[in-house]
Amino acid sequence: MLNDRFWGSVRGFLLPAVGLVIVFTLSSTELVFGQEEMAVIAAPAEEAVIAPPLSPENFGLVNTILLLSAVLVIFMQAGFALVEVGLNSGKNAINILSKNVLDFCLGVTLFFAFGYAIMYPGADFAGGYFGIDKTRIFAIPDHDGAGFLSPQIDFLFQAAFAATAATIVSGAVAGRMKFGSYLVYTAVITGLVYPIVGFWKWGGGWLNTAGFHDFAGSGLVHMLGGVAGLAGAIVLGPRIGRFSKDGKSSPIPGHNITFVALGVFILLIGWYGFNPGSQFGAPTAALGMADINAYGLIATNTTLAACAGGIIGLMVAWLATGKPDLTMALNGILGGLVGITANCDCVSNASALIIGGVAGAVCYAAVVLLDLVKIDDPVGAFPVHGACGAWGLIAAALFGGKDMAAQLTGTAAIAVWAFVTMGALFFIMKMVGFLRVSQEEELSGLDLSEHGMQAYVADSM
Amino acid sequence: MLNDRFWGSVRGFLLPAVGLVIVFTLSSTELVFGQEEMAVIAAPAEEAVIAPPLSPENFGLVNTILLLSAVLVIFMQAGFALVEVGLNSGKNAINILSKNVLDFCLGVTLFFAFGYAIMYPGADFAGGYFGIDKTRIFAIPDHDGAGFLSPQIDFLFQAAFAATAATIVSGAVAGRMKFGSYLVYTAVITGLVYPIVGFWKWGGGWLNTAGFHDFAGSGLVHMLGGVAGLAGAIVLGPRIGRFSKDGKSSPIPGHNITFVALGVFILLIGWYGFNPGSQFGAPTAALGMADINAYGLIATNTTLAACAGGIIGLMVAWLATGKPDLTMALNGILGGLVGITANCDCVSNASALIIGGVAGAVCYAAVVLLDLVKIDDPVGAFPVHGACGAWGLIAAALFGGKDMAAQLTGTAAIAVWAFVTMGALFFIMKMVGFLRVSQEEELSGLDLSEHGMQAYVADSM
Amino acid sequence: MLNDRFWGSVRGFLLPAVGLVIVFTLSSTELVFGQEEMAVIAAPAEEAVIAPPLSPENFGLVNTILLLSAVLVIFMQAGFALVEVGLNSGKNAINILSKNVLDFCLGVTLFFAFGYAIMYPGADFAGGYFGIDKTRIFAIPDHDGAGFLSPQIDFLFQAAFAATAATIVSGAVAGRMKFGSYLVYTAVITGLVYPIVGFWKWGGGWLNTAGFHDFAGSGLVHMLGGVAGLAGAIVLGPRIGRFSKDGKSSPIPGHNITFVALGVFILLIGWYGFNPGSQFGAPTAALGMADINAYGLIATNTTLAACAGGIIGLMVAWLATGKPDLTMALNGILGGLVGITANCDCVSNASALIIGGVAGAVCYAAVVLLDLVKIDDPVGAFPVHGACGAWGLIAAALFGGKDMAAQLTGTAAIAVWAFVTMGALFFIMKMVGFLRVSQEEELSGLDLSEHGMQAYVADSM
Repeated sequence: MLNDRFWGSVRGFLLPAVGLVIVFTLSSTELVFGQEEMAVIAAPAEEAVIAPPLSPENFGLVNTILLLSAVLVIFMQAGFALVEVGLNSGKNAINILSKNVLDFCLGVTLFFAFGYAIMYPGADFAGGYFGIDKTRIFAIPDHDGAGFLSPQIDFLFQAAFAATAATIVSGAVAGRMKFGSYLVYTAVITGLVYPIVGFWKWGGGWLNTAGFHDFAGSGLVHMLGGVAGLAGAIVLGPRIGRFSKDGKSSPIPGHNITFVALGVFILLIGWYGFNPGSQFGAPTAALGMADINAYGLIATNTTLAACAGGIIGLMVAWLATGKPDLTMALNGILGGLVGITANCDCVSNASALIIGGVAGAVCYAAVVLLDLVKIDDPVGAFPVHGACGAWGLIAAALFGGKDMAAQLTGTAAIAVWAFVTMGALFFIMKMVGFLRVSQEEELSGLDLSEHGMQAYVADSM
Repeated sequence: MLNDRFWGSVRGFLLPAVGLVIVFTLSSTELVFGQEEMAVIAAPAEEAVIAPPLSPENFGLVNTILLLSAVLVIFMQAGFALVEVGLNSGKNAINILSKNVLDFCLGVTLFFAFGYAIMYPGADFAGGYFGIDKTRIFAIPDHDGAGFLSPQIDFLFQAAFAATAATIVSGAVAGRMKFGSYLVYTAVITGLVYPIVGFWKWGGGWLNTAGFHDFAGSGLVHMLGGVAGLAGAIVLGPRIGRFSKDGKSSPIPGHNITFVALGVFILLIGWYGFNPGSQFGAPTAALGMADINAYGLIATNTTLAACAGGIIGLMVAWLATGKPDLTMALNGILGGLVGITANCDCVSNASALIIGGVAGAVCYAAVVLLDLVKIDDPVGAFPVHGACGAWGLIAAALFGGKDMAAQLTGTAAIAVWAFVTMGALFFIMKMVGFLRVSQEEELSGLDLSEHGMQAYVADSM
Repeated sequence: MLNDRFWGSVRGFLLPAVGLVIVFTLSSTELVFGQEEMAVIAAPAEEAVIAPPLSPENFGLVNTILLLSAVLVIFMQAGFALVEVGLNSGKNAINILSKNVLDFCLGVTLFFAFGYAIMYPGADFAGGYFGIDKTRIFAIPDHDGAGFLSPQIDFLFQAAFAATAATIVSGAVAGRMKFGSYLVYTAVITGLVYPIVGFWKWGGGWLNTAGFHDFAGSGLVHMLGGVAGLAGAIVLGPRIGRFSKDGKSSPIPGHNITFVALGVFILLIGWYGFNPGSQFGAPTAALGMADINAYGLIATNTTLAACAGGIIGLMVAWLATGKPDLTMALNGILGGLVGITANCDCVSNASALIIGGVAGAVCYAAVVLLDLVKIDDPVGAFPVHGACGAWGLIAAALFGGKDMAAQLTGTAAIAVWAFVTMGALFFIMKMVGFLRVSQEEELSGLDLSEHGMQAYVADSM
C-alpha cells in the first residue's frame, strides 16, 4: 500500500510536471501568444521608462521603498494563509498551509522563469525565458541605474503580485481538492494566466491602450483570483454537508477565528506595500518626488476604505441577523481594501470612505447570493476579491473620473479571461479524475489523507 | 425571540449612533471647546512647520519613513489584539477581537471626521470637520510639498496613534462589557477625548507652553488609555469569580500564551514606528538630516528599555513567587516600552536600561496593587500603560533634564482628564443599564451571547 | 516547599549571574582575548569606514533603511519562537517562549555591555565596555554623521544579529533543559562566543584577512547557532520516548503546525532585513547609491533560494515517503534562506535557485542523518542552520568565485569554535547537575515544572 501511495504520488507530481513543461515550452514560441506583436505594442512604454533618469538619491529612495513594499506584499502570503486556515476546519489546516506555501514557492519561480517576460516583454531583467539572451542567466546582472527602477527590485515587486493572485484561489477550493492538482493550477495561473492579463494593462497591451484604469490591481490581481476561485468552486462542487439534500444551507464554522483576525491585520499591513508601493512600481508613470504626496494620498485612502468596509460589513450583518458577526467585519475590511485598489490614486478621502463602505455591503450581498445559488466558497474568495474587485474598477469611473466604457470593458475582459481559462483547466482536471479527493478522504480531512499528518496534536498539548 | 434580538441590536447600535452624532455636532461649535481660542494658541507652531522647506530628496525620505512608521504603528493593533485575546478566556475571544477591529475602523474614521481637526486646528488636511473649507472634502488634495510633512501622511501617522489610545482599554474591560457600549466608548475617546489632550501638547496647547515633555506619548497615548481602562474596570466591577466573597483573589488564566508572546513581539516591532517614527512626525521639531542620529538613538533606547523591562519583570516575579513567570516578562517588556516613550529622545543608552528596568518593576508592583484593592484588569492595561506611562513622564525629568514641575503637572492633568471624562462616560452608561452584560451572558461567554459564534470549534479541529 | 523552590530559584538564578559577571570581567582584560592585538588588526577596516562621507541625503537613506532592516531582523525573533513552539509539545510552550523572549532581552543587553566592543574594537559607540571612555556611558552620544553609519543604528543592526545567533539553539535543546542553565548559555553566546567569531570576519580579524567570504552570516550567525544547538542536543541526550530501547525512532509531533507556517513566513520577511540590509550594514564595504542594484540582487536571490528550497524540500520528502510533508517544505525554505545568506551578493539569480534547491535537499538529508545517529534535535536546528550554513559558505566558492580554501578554512574554524566552546559549557553544566530537568519534570512538561503555568487552558477555551 505504501508502494501504491508512492507511485500514486509520483504520478500525481511528475506527470503533471512534465505536462507543464511542454505547455510552457509551447507557449514560448511566438505562435501561441504572438509574442512579437506584444513586444511591438509594449515598446513605447518601455522606452518611456528608460528616458529621464532620476538623481542618485531619488533612484535610491524610490527603489528601496519599492523593495520594502515588495516585502510587505510578500507578507500578505502569511495573511492569506491565516485567514484561509482559520475559516476552515482544523482537519484541513496542513493542506491549506501547504497550498499557500507552495503558491509562493512555485509562483515566484515560474514568474521568474516565464511570467515576468510574458508580462513585460523586452524588460531589462535577466531572469525571463523570453526575449533575452539566454547566456546571461548565469551572469550577475549589472545595471547602471539609468532608468527608474532597478530591474531586480522591479522583478521582486511584480513577482509578489503574481503570487498574490495565485493564493486567493486556495481558500475557495479548500477542503476537497487534490494537492497535486492544486499545484498544476498554481503553476498555470502564475506562469501564464496572470502574466498575460497583466501584460494587457501593465505591460502596455490593449487594455492600456483602451484607457482602462486599474491602479494596483483590483481587477488584474484580485478579481482575477476571485473569479478563478469561483470557477474552481463551481467545478469542484460544495463540500460534503455544506448543503443538505433538501436544499438547506449549513455553514461549516471555521476552527480558529483568532487566526482569521490576525490574518486580516497582516493583510492590511501588506496592502501598504500593494497600493502605495505601486506608486513607485508602475513602469509607465513618471516617477519623482512629486509622487510623495500621491504616496500619502493612496495610503490614507487605502486605510479609510478598509475602515469603512469593516464598519459597514459589521453593520449590515448586525441589522440582517441581529448579531455583530466578526467575520463579516473582517471580510468587509478586505472588501474595502480590494475595492480601493483600482482607484486609490484618483479619488478623494471622502470618496474612499464611500467606496470602502459600499464594498463592505457588496461583500455581504455576494456571500448571501453564493449561498442562495449553492456555490460553496469556504472563505468568501469571490465575494471579497471577485465582487469587490469589479466594484473597485467601476468606482474608478464613478469617483475617479475614469472612462466608464473602458472600465466596463476591462472588467468584463478580465472576468471572462479568468473564468474561461481557469474554468477550462479545472474542468479538464475533473474529466481525467485528477481534481477532487474521494469521499472518505474528504471526511477524514485532507491533512491525514493527503499529507499523512495533523496540524494540531491534542495529546501533546 | 430573533425579532427581539434584532430590535435589541438596533437599539444597541442605532440609538447610540444618533446620540454620538448629536454630541459630535455640538462639539463642533466653538461654544463647546473654544475652538477659536485653540487655533490662536496653535498658530505659532503651525507657522514654524511651513517655514523652512526640505530638499526634494529629504522631503521624500522624511515622508516615506513616516508612512512606513505609520504602518508599523497600525501593526500594533494586531499585537494588542493577540495580547488581550491570549490573556483572557477563549469564550470571549470573538468579543475581544471585534472590539479591537472596530477600535481601528471607528477610531480612524472619527479621527478623520473630527479628531485630527480638533488636535491640529488649522492644519492643511482636507479631512477634518473643523476649520477647513468643507467644499474641499470631495476634491483630491493637492499639496506642493513646501512644508515638512505631506498632509495625508501626517494624518495617517496621527490616526494610527489615536487608534492605539483606544485599543489599550479593550483589555481592561474584557469579559463583561456590552459590545454596543464599547463602540460608544471607542467613538468618544478617538473622536474627542484623545484629540483634546493631544492638542494640549502636540497641537501647541497649554501643556506645550508649560514646557511639558512627552516625546512620543507615554502620557498622551499610553497613560490616557491605561487610566481610561482603570476607570472602566472600576465602574464595571470585576468578572464573576475573579474575587471570592471572602476576599480571595483567583486569577483567571489566559487561554493561549503563545498568542500573547507573538502579540508582544508584534508590539515591539510596532514601537519602532511609534518612537523613532515620531522623530519625523512631530510638527514642532525642525526636521532634517541631523535627525538621523536621533532616529538611531531613539530606536536603540527603545530596544534597551524593552530588554531591561523584560529581564527585571521576570526577575522580580521569580524572586517573589519562585517561578519565572513568562507573562511578567512580557508585561515587563511592554512596560519598558511605555516607560521610554516619553523620553527616548533625551536620555542616554545607560539611562534607557535603567528606565526600562524600573518600568518592569513598576509594572509588577502595579499588578500586585490592583489585586490587593480588588480591581479586575484582566490584561494589566493600567500597570503597563497607566503606571509605566506616568513613570516615563517623570523619568524625562530624572534622566532627561526636563522640568520636573512641568512633568508632574502634565502627568496629573492627563490622568485626571482621562479618569474624569471616561469614568463619567462609563458611569452614565452603567446608570442607563447599557454597560455590563447579564450574569448568564458573562458565564456563557460574550462570544455566544453577544456575537452568536465561537472562536474555536473543537469538532472541526 | 514554596521556600525550597524560592531558594532553588535564587540558586538557579543569582549564582550563575555572579559567575557570569566574573567571567565577563575577566574577559575584559587584555590577557584573556588579546584585545590590544585585535584592535591593531581591526584598525585599517575602521579607518576605511570613516574616510569618504556620504551626502546628507544618502547618509539619511542608508541609515534609515539600515534601521528598518534591523527591525525586520528583530521580527525574526517572533518567527523563531513560533517555529520552535509549534514543532514541540504544547506542554513545553511557555518554556520555549520564555527562552526566546529572554534570548532577545539578555542578548541585546549583553551585546550592548560587552559584545559589540569585542566584535568591533575601536568603533564609535558609547555602549561598549571595552576601548571607550567609560565616562561617556551616561552622556547622550553626539555624532556628526561624518562616516557611513550612525553608530546607534549600526549597534542596533549588529545586536539584532547577535540575538538571532542565540535563539537558533533554543529549538535544539527544547523539552528537557533547565531554564536557568539556558539563561547562562544565552549570556555566554551573545556576550562572548558570537562577538569573538564575528570579530574574526566582520571586525576585521584573521578570517577577513584570509579572504573568507560570508556576506550576511550563513556561517558566523547560522552555522554558529546550528552547531551550538547540535552540541547542546548531544550533551543533553534525547527527550524521553524519542528513541525506544530497541533503537526505534519515534518522532514526537508538533502541537500546532499553523504556528510553524506563520513563523516561517515571518522569518522569510525578516530575512529581507538580514540579507539585503547587510548591504548597508557591512562596515568594510564602500557604501553608495551603486549599492541599490546590489540591494535588489540580494533580495531577489534570497527570495529565489527560499522558493527553490521549499519546492525541493517538499519534493524530496514526497518521493521518499509518498506524502508531501509540509514541515519539510517549511524547513526547506529556511534551509534555502540560510544557504543563500553567505553568497547572495555574488551569485546570479539562476545560481540562487540552485543553491536554495540544494539546501532543501541538504536539510532533508541532515534530518535523516541525525535520526540515524539518534541525536534528538526537535526542530531541526542543525539541519537548517548548521548543515545549510556550511553549504552556503561552500556555495560562495562554487557559484560566487570566492576562494575555496578560505571558505573551507572558515567553515571548519567556525564549526570547531562553536562546537568546542558551547559543548564545553553544556558539558560543565551537565557535570555540576545544572543542565537537564528531572524525568518527572520532563514528563509533566517544563511549563508546569519550571514555570508553574500552562500555555493553553482548555477550560477557559
